[in-house]
Amino acid sequence: MIVDGQQIRPIWLDQDRITVKVIDQRQLPHQFVVADLTTVDQVIHAIREMFVRGAPLIGATGAYGVMIAALNGEDEPDQAAFIRQACTRLKAARPTAVNLAWGVDRVLEKVLCAGSPADRIDAARTEASAIAEEEAENCRRIGVHGAGLVEAISRKKKGETVNILTHCNAGWLACIEYGTATAPIYEAFDRGVDLHVWVDETRPLNQGSRLTAWELGKHGVPHTIITDNAGGHLMQHGRVDMVIVGTDRSTHTGDVANKIGTYLKALAARDNHIPFYVALPSSTFDWTLSDGVAEIPIEERSPDEVRYTQGLADGRITRVLVPPESSPAADFAFDVTPARLVSGFITERGICGASKADIHELFPEF
Amino acid sequence: MIVDGQQIRPIWLDQDRITVKVIDQRQLPHQFVVADLTTVDQVIHAIREMFVRGAPLIGATGAYGVMIAALNGEDEPDQAAFIRQACTRLKAARPTAVNLAWGVDRVLEKVLCAGSPADRIDAARTEASAIAEEEAENCRRIGVHGAGLVEAISRKKKGETVNILTHCNAGWLACIEYGTATAPIYEAFDRGVDLHVWVDETRPLNQGSRLTAWELGKHGVPHTIITDNAGGHLMQHGRVDMVIVGTDRSTHTGDVANKIGTYLKALAARDNHIPFYVALPSSTFDWTLSDGVAEIPIEERSPDEVRYTQGLADGRITRVLVPPESSPAADFAFDVTPARLVSGFITERGICGASKADIHELFPEF
Repeated sequence: MIVDGQQIRPIWLDQDRITVKVIDQRQLPHQFVVADLTTVDQVIHAIREMFVRGAPLIGATGAYGVMIAALNGEDEPDQAAFIRQACTRLKAARPTAVNLAWGVDRVLEKVLCAGSPADRIDAARTEASAIAEEEAENCRRIGVHGAGLVEAISRKKKGETVNILTHCNAGWLACIEYGTATAPIYEAFDRGVDLHVWVDETRPLNQGSRLTAWELGKHGVPHTIITDNAGGHLMQHGRVDMVIVGTDRSTHTGDVANKIGTYLKALAARDNHIPFYVALPSSTFDWTLSDGVAEIPIEERSPDEVRYTQGLADGRITRVLVPPESSPAADFAFDVTPARLVSGFITERGICGASKADIHELFPEF
Repeated sequence: MIVDGQQIRPIWLDQDRITVKVIDQRQLPHQFVVADLTTVDQVIHAIREMFVRGAPLIGATGAYGVMIAALNGEDEPDQAAFIRQACTRLKAARPTAVNLAWGVDRVLEKVLCAGSPADRIDAARTEASAIAEEEAENCRRIGVHGAGLVEAISRKKKGETVNILTHCNAGWLACIEYGTATAPIYEAFDRGVDLHVWVDETRPLNQGSRLTAWELGKHGVPHTIITDNAGGHLMQHGRVDMVIVGTDRSTHTGDVANKIGTYLKALAARDNHIPFYVALPSSTFDWTLSDGVAEIPIEERSPDEVRYTQGLADGRITRVLVPPESSPAADFAFDVTPARLVSGFITERGICGASKADIHELFPEF
């Protein structure tokens, strides 16, 4: 995406071709900090501590992590074993997003076919970069397919503003370019559709108010930040025309793991007859699980992510404690929206229903 | 309630019998500050800026506001006209809670029957104090009736921990004593029921994490703060046995206005077959409205309540800006849960269904 006149991605390979650069998204929107990743531990730290987040970006970061493992292990007696071990650790960095294992495994497979340490590094670099480019292209296509849905609502409303609600950040910061949930928004906006986005702030880490609002603002898209509590009220009063969210893992039966609270928005959308779409590249489908609620592992993170809120005070990034010091908290990072509440998936190949039959019809190779 | 060994209420009349004292709840849990109210403007400010909040407490504060108006107007040429004008302003301080107008009008009626300036003051003082005592007693009874529901679940679970989810603060801080939603919790806890409360943090003003958690902690009730997004996930996984919330205004047909986000929890409770109860004194019923979603006025407050979060940093209460400075926000303070999602009302007279017939059966005089 272009930010302040500069072409930028949330992850890229430095000119030295051995350093992976990522935007440290924990500091946004108040500081723009780029972190260098040159060791596997740094990659794991960046994923776990959420310098990078969002299913497609975690996948790409994991992929580049294998390249870093190959580089780190170049002088090891058994480089392949070193890489394999690193991959196991990389895949365990976060449990919910399926793209992490997908990205790591895809690169690992290429690496293990290469014959020499240098070849393994080259293979990893080539495959990780291919993943990044493919995911960017997938997101571009998601935008093209999804924009049609936005345009259809716009026509139905005779050009009146289309109000789209989104939860968390499934924007270009979560992907490589365009985003998943935001791709149809950017594309429709660029085509001239009059639209406005309700941005759920997305507690506890405020990816909506910190990241989605920042992205949309940089692109000039009209938006309003609301609390996660507000969407139902807006839907009851006809102020939401559609919901688009991303996903960290969706089963091939149509169940959707996404940021905690997504399920509540899906229930409200259903109760108010509002279309609820999930935008994802096919790398986010889990082809092995059938029951999302029962089977997708839900990460539980540090209670302090709930207890403390980070923002700007007197020009400095500051953390404030909201509840009593002695009150315990719990931080469930994701929930699962059952397929029955999902109007459809917006994928790089087009739009399909949230059912095993529809998903497999679009992706018959799986 | 007893806090740190001291008997305390969120509002009381000072020994001078002319100063109204309130806990400035904006500072909790980090500072315990008591504010003196001696002018109508101060009362309006305290209601609007949420030194006091919660339907029953707003009602009592409005009632004492009429006493303050009578005192302020003692030397006016037309004290009654002065009081009437003050009442109009008091009732407009916040739009959603019906108790405000109820409390003000009830005291005003008594005042207008009195013959002299001093009698008007006495009448106002007597009636405002009566309202406070009645609401305390109503909340005690709500506790007794509601505790039966908690005990029934406990028996069904063979004494295993009963998990109750609540949203916002409908505790004694929102009332005079006991609370509404918390009254059954305190009563059941005091009777020895093994229970645990999931406390929704309740964005944007965090009345859950700031106030409910503080109250429950002071009383020794086991609790865990969660984001407003988390309840649906917990319900899907059998970790919530019942929901109890308060209300700012409920129609006599059973629609429930309460803190924004309540509707989303009610949808999730229904989707997971979990009982969803609303606890209220009868002063919170609006006997004039039939369609809550269409008719109850929903307050929209300052966007900065969403944009900034207040908490403790380096021992000082500090406000941090979370989103980009340039991103707009909107703050809808309440939503309306339709009667069809409500399992029942817990009132001072007992429990009834969320229908016009059931409510009027319990309160035939209206």
